[in-house]
Amino acid sequence: MPQIVFIGSGNVATHLSKALKSAGNQVLQVYSRSLPHAKKLAKEIRADYTDNLRELRTDADIYFIAVKDNALPGLAKKINLGDKLIVHTSGSVGMDILKKASKNYGVFYPMQTFSKQKKIDLHGIPVFIEANRVENEKILLTLAHQVAGKKNIHRMNSEQRKIVHLAAVFANNFPNHLYTIAEKILNTRKLSFDILKPLILETAGKIQDNSPAIMQTGPAKRGDKKIINEHLKMLKPYPGYKKIYKLISGSIYKAENKKSNS
Amino acid sequence: MPQIVFIGSGNVATHLSKALKSAGNQVLQVYSRSLPHAKKLAKEIRADYTDNLRELRTDADIYFIAVKDNALPGLAKKINLGDKLIVHTSGSVGMDILKKASKNYGVFYPMQTFSKQKKIDLHGIPVFIEANRVENEKILLTLAHQVAGKKNIHRMNSEQRKIVHLAAVFANNFPNHLYTIAEKILNTRKLSFDILKPLILETAGKIQDNSPAIMQTGPAKRGDKKIINEHLKMLKPYPGYKKIYKLISGSIYKAENKKSNS
Repeated sequence: MPQIVFIGSGNVATHLSKALKSAGNQVLQVYSRSLPHAKKLAKEIRADYTDNLRELRTDADIYFIAVKDNALPGLAKKINLGDKLIVHTSGSVGMDILKKASKNYGVFYPMQTFSKQKKIDLHGIPVFIEANRVENEKILLTLAHQVAGKKNIHRMNSEQRKIVHLAAVFANNFPNHLYTIAEKILNTRKLSFDILKPLILETAGKIQDNSPAIMQTGPAKRGDKKIINEHLKMLKPYPGYKKIYKLISGSIYKAENKKSNS
Repeated sequence: MPQIVFIGSGNVATHLSKALKSAGNQVLQVYSRSLPHAKKLAKEIRADYTDNLRELRTDADIYFIAVKDNALPGLAKKINLGDKLIVHTSGSVGMDILKKASKNYGVFYPMQTFSKQKKIDLHGIPVFIEANRVENEKILLTLAHQVAGKKNIHRMNSEQRKIVHLAAVFANNFPNHLYTIAEKILNTRKLSFDILKPLILETAGKIQDNSPAIMQTGPAKRGDKKIINEHLKMLKPYPGYKKIYKLISGSIYKAENKKSNS
């Protein structure tokens, strides 16, 4: 089993290091800019910890950088591991950013909406693998098989991964914000968000077997101007929400009309 | 068991009439403007059918109007049932629209994203009940208990129901459209939408126990301008999607900053 160092102690580092540890790998060390954060995660997975990059252990086999995307370039520049395998976990950053950090590098991107608050079973989520050499790809695929379901593991180059990441923003980050808006609207009238929860699961469930394009429902799809205008009136105190309502309703209407004209 | 007439043959009429039939009620008749539509549903639930409002059976106990919201006012005007209980199934139309159709009226709104394509178990979904008299409310609650889970049945007035419906547009119709956009983005590069499906379920799942406000993730939440600008560049060929990306990202960023200032 390979020995691993984690650079980073956020959501991805937490979930991934725990999953790799559970699968029998040894995590030697956790690095974080914040010593308390490094310590917290290190304790949970019985690893060393440091906040000093110069103290990175040199006896590991694989180095995972799991930090915020905008911290990646700066970190990559400061690290030189010779020929040790180094990978980052970002969906939106190319593999080549690690070119100068080692002769062996790659990407191990578990596409998930990680929150520390929630325990996540990695087995159901997709993992995207890329590496600069076939041997490195093999090592990463082996690790991926330990933590993810076989059919969820995808080899994918940086360009494709960026597209997937962009699509995931639409399919995941944005819907979550719309849930937040729905919750706020209900709360203004002292209604509970619980009411909507079954519906939210159903909507996510029904596109598992059907294209969302044919599952669209609602006033915008029907072109029901009366309801739409009533909703816009109700949203008057919330100009930000009103703008979103207008824009997405228009986009739905356009998409539906294209369909029926084609 | 009460005997029922359905006015309408669309998604809601189809699912609801089948569920009520399965629960042991008799559906006497289906009315639709379109005789073939009326016939199709009527055959499935062993009912009579008609496309003529004057031929509505007079021996039923409850009349369900399940038609498009914008068709409701016109229909309600044409119907006079004396004192037979009449209900509509709309989330966004007030109860009083049925005032002149009968002395006994109410609303039976199963809040769901009905598509004929998909079989739906009504037990998991919320049903909203309103009636002009306590006795009518009791009848509707009894029917609701036959088709929906007890904790999903809510008594709610027209004003509250409209708020819930507006919130549902944000939590259901709009996310489905964003899934559609994600699918289109992936398809332009010949990538499969299947990749995103586990993530979509996870996002809907994790707000079952946590407020979406604290579960937000993604570049907009982190204020990661580099990624956001890269995404906007990738969306250049799709000005409609780009606008949506910009507006929702701005809204997420605003919501997150409000949180950290408070």
